[in-house]
Amino acid sequence: MTEKKLGGQTAALACPPVLAGWANVVGQKEGAGPLGPYFDVVAQDDSLGQPSWERAERLMQQQALSLALDRAGPGAPQPDWLFAGDLLNQCIGASYAARAHGLPYFGLYGACSTLGEGLCLAAMTLDGGFGARAGVVVSSHFCTAERQYRTPLEYGGQRTPTAQWTATAAGAVILSRSGRGPKITHVTVGRVIDLGVTDANNMGAAMAPAACDTIAAHLRDTGRSPGFYDLIVTGDLGRLGSQLLLELLERRGIVLENHADCGCLLFDQKSQDVHCGGSGCGCSAAVFTGYLLTGLTEGRWNNLLFCPTGALHSPVATAQGESIPGICHAVALTAPEGV
Amino acid sequence: MTEKKLGGQTAALACPPVLAGWANVVGQKEGAGPLGPYFDVVAQDDSLGQPSWERAERLMQQQALSLALDRAGPGAPQPDWLFAGDLLNQCIGASYAARAHGLPYFGLYGACSTLGEGLCLAAMTLDGGFGARAGVVVSSHFCTAERQYRTPLEYGGQRTPTAQWTATAAGAVILSRSGRGPKITHVTVGRVIDLGVTDANNMGAAMAPAACDTIAAHLRDTGRSPGFYDLIVTGDLGRLGSQLLLELLERRGIVLENHADCGCLLFDQKSQDVHCGGSGCGCSAAVFTGYLLTGLTEGRWNNLLFCPTGALHSPVATAQGESIPGICHAVALTAPEGV
Repeated sequence: MTEKKLGGQTAALACPPVLAGWANVVGQKEGAGPLGPYFDVVAQDDSLGQPSWERAERLMQQQALSLALDRAGPGAPQPDWLFAGDLLNQCIGASYAARAHGLPYFGLYGACSTLGEGLCLAAMTLDGGFGARAGVVVSSHFCTAERQYRTPLEYGGQRTPTAQWTATAAGAVILSRSGRGPKITHVTVGRVIDLGVTDANNMGAAMAPAACDTIAAHLRDTGRSPGFYDLIVTGDLGRLGSQLLLELLERRGIVLENHADCGCLLFDQKSQDVHCGGSGCGCSAAVFTGYLLTGLTEGRWNNLLFCPTGALHSPVATAQGESIPGICHAVALTAPEGV
Repeated sequence: MTEKKLGGQTAALACPPVLAGWANVVGQKEGAGPLGPYFDVVAQDDSLGQPSWERAERLMQQQALSLALDRAGPGAPQPDWLFAGDLLNQCIGASYAARAHGLPYFGLYGACSTLGEGLCLAAMTLDGGFGARAGVVVSSHFCTAERQYRTPLEYGGQRTPTAQWTATAAGAVILSRSGRGPKITHVTVGRVIDLGVTDANNMGAAMAPAACDTIAAHLRDTGRSPGFYDLIVTGDLGRLGSQLLLELLERRGIVLENHADCGCLLFDQKSQDVHCGGSGCGCSAAVFTGYLLTGLTEGRWNNLLFCPTGALHSPVATAQGESIPGICHAVALTAPEGV
């Protein structure tokens, strides 16, 4: 048996799995943002014609997965496993969507880091010799998240300057043990990090320490410098969280000159009124399956470190005075050969 | 690369991981039940001295994991990965417990099937060559679950005859690529199955079709007959769900003569007023780490199929008129060599 754990928190894939197909479905506001042209389906309104926001979110997961499967080869066999999650209580977006697809199903909860968690597990499962293909799909929806985490939309609650905007989006990726496409070479699995932030309207500050911990662990475990990557992309730290990340890393002697954040990329700061940026599982999933994988396949970047971040609190925990634990998983990707 | 997927939903572990240590912490009522002597820690009251039920549940996870780690070898290195989950919104039992341990963390949501999901993933991860040891820990708590899923305890709501009693319990298992102990030889990953049950007070009926689907898939994929196993144990179907499972299997021509259910084993039907039986992640986790693994190491059984079941609905989904999807994962275990 080959040892594929590098020590610390990182695994190196012996036969790096290929991303064989991917797709996304986003809401109106996301489609109107600067990355609009990169999205596959832009919903005409955020209900997607469904009787509830929760059903709309479920439908987005189903559509994104179906489209990703088509792109991964319409005649190819079904994936062996499905890894999926969302932000809803009891992950009903993912579970009910999985009911429609009928695949062997692993439900995940990693808050907004869930795509990273799913990619780590799917890559290790395939590289471990278990099955030929795996699907990963995640989602978030502004309206389901507002009601569940904050207040019903009808209240018209005022948002604080540090607040972020939960993206209405789903993203799906099909991993394969063979074929051509971007490859996952390493995964660094995050630890739960909590520096004591208690403001549930400042997720960026709560998650930045976790992003710092995971990125530092990845560089330590692989022996790489930040410059190895053309781009190191965090999930949804937003503007404030991104600044904090760079400061925290600098204290450890790590200077990131090639950092971007999905929360800052998804919306236009000036015209879209999202304060600190986008958030939600769907934020990093849409940016990854839209903008990032396009750049990786078109030769814009060769090496990418994708680091979705999540805040693992709940409204109950916050009401009980708990601070907000964060997590971040890092996935190292290379461009398809010959690009 | 060896193909370790048997087809269908089942993976065969090439180098079956060993269960190197396990432990549980249960509440007062669970400790007073017929399996009381099998539990490691019986709490004096269900608050465990904590200011909230949620913190009590978190503490149970921490204690169970710490104790399991001690038993797996006090001087052994930390596990490479932690797989954990619970029933709470945003899985705060698991996330906050994981914060204390600082291990690379995968948050899972599989409702009451979560121990099965974690064992499947941990076994495949280790067998795939990733790391030497992995921890799995899950929990449920009667008081956190009642408030979240049904009504606050203070209401004194009447329970229907088909209701089950969410166990106050946490169970932890440490898997290792080497050493001596019961082994996981196969895992069958469940699909989401929904036959249209909408009564959130009848979880057994909602989950029985999933248990039927997974057990049938396991037997088909491995070519085994039910008689291969000394015991086939479902998670928490309870009395009604267990009857339904046997009926559903018989319609497929499968007769189980060696079936037991953790929900029926945990409490005494006559004296403990739990109607259809126990439920919750902690139910199957406590019975597994208490009664079942003891029997497997003491030579009572040689081959065991452990099939935790989960209902993947939420109160929001139920309020919106959705039916209740179920899932079941099956884990095949053999007794330690020489027993």
